[in-house]
Amino acid sequence: MMHTSLDHLIQLFSKLPGLGKRSAERLVLHLIKKKELALYPLIEALQETAHNIHPCSFCGCLDVRDPCFICSDKNRDPSILCVVQDMSDLLAFERTGSFHGLYHVLGGVLSALEGVGPQDLNIQKLLSKVQKQKFDEIVLATNATLEGQTTFHYLRDLLIPSGIKVTRLAFGVPLGGELHYLDEGTLSTALKARQVQ
Amino acid sequence: MMHTSLDHLIQLFSKLPGLGKRSAERLVLHLIKKKELALYPLIEALQETAHNIHPCSFCGCLDVRDPCFICSDKNRDPSILCVVQDMSDLLAFERTGSFHGLYHVLGGVLSALEGVGPQDLNIQKLLSKVQKQKFDEIVLATNATLEGQTTFHYLRDLLIPSGIKVTRLAFGVPLGGELHYLDEGTLSTALKARQVQ
Repeated sequence: MMHTSLDHLIQLFSKLPGLGKRSAERLVLHLIKKKELALYPLIEALQETAHNIHPCSFCGCLDVRDPCFICSDKNRDPSILCVVQDMSDLLAFERTGSFHGLYHVLGGVLSALEGVGPQDLNIQKLLSKVQKQKFDEIVLATNATLEGQTTFHYLRDLLIPSGIKVTRLAFGVPLGGELHYLDEGTLSTALKARQVQ
Repeated sequence: MMHTSLDHLIQLFSKLPGLGKRSAERLVLHLIKKKELALYPLIEALQETAHNIHPCSFCGCLDVRDPCFICSDKNRDPSILCVVQDMSDLLAFERTGSFHGLYHVLGGVLSALEGVGPQDLNIQKLLSKVQKQKFDEIVLATNATLEGQTTFHYLRDLLIPSGIKVTRLAFGVPLGGELHYLDEGTLSTALKARQVQ
């Protein structure tokens, strides 16, 4: 009934993470209403991204440059490596402004359920990098989920023999977190890891 | 610090209705991860929309055809006209499947606050359409907001002299609505408009 071109675009948007049918429709109608201000610039930026953004061949970070903006930054500390699941985690660390070392992006996590094995992740490059470069410390910053933890254990077992210090993020109460809203696991972990003040 | 092309795209998305900085970032990283499945088809659909979708010169409905898929549909009832604010309202009515007449899209509402006057809306075309075509009824289906009501009153005063029956949507309790969550205005309107069963 409705013309396919508009319908098709709404459907494509509605499949993206965080968007549903209604929000996609709202978005598309907004774009059509603001062709000059929103639609044309968006098309242009998407095309530029499609053509120019690639994973860095050293760390997997998405950038137009290779080596990426982090690997090519002389001010970063090359003695510490932070291993993350995805580009979004790298961006989250960068937002904190408190990590100045290098990254390695795995591109996912081990998941038996989704059929993701070690060969599907950016692990070989991590191991050869660890053999070549002299890192003082490797932070395995995978998510605190089942898959993240599985990936952590797998990588730790691979890296421990190299003799490099392997660390992971602290578990505990998130800042601003109200104790009565926390799950039992987090709360008991935070209690066990309590610190003398 | 971060490369501008990716940043720029995230910023463009984050300005769209319903999206924030985080959801835009998530969306963009998803698009880059799924270039073949999501990014390229989206660019193509956006381009097609940008070039081919225009407001129907009769009713203002967005379509690739002119007259649009509604105005050119011989099965629609030409004796009843539904005046809506935006294309999204037209789509909402079409989803109900319970309106078979024609539409007229105003392209907004009167708003002193945002400086939108009658000359900014698709009103002249509505008036000349009403003079030319023989409608039995015009449904003024503006939103139940302050601006929507203002626009309703403005249009009613313009249309009443033509002698055509002018109607508006019923106010009342929304289906599935729990009375104790409703605002006082809706509840008292629903009470006043109570119906004998």
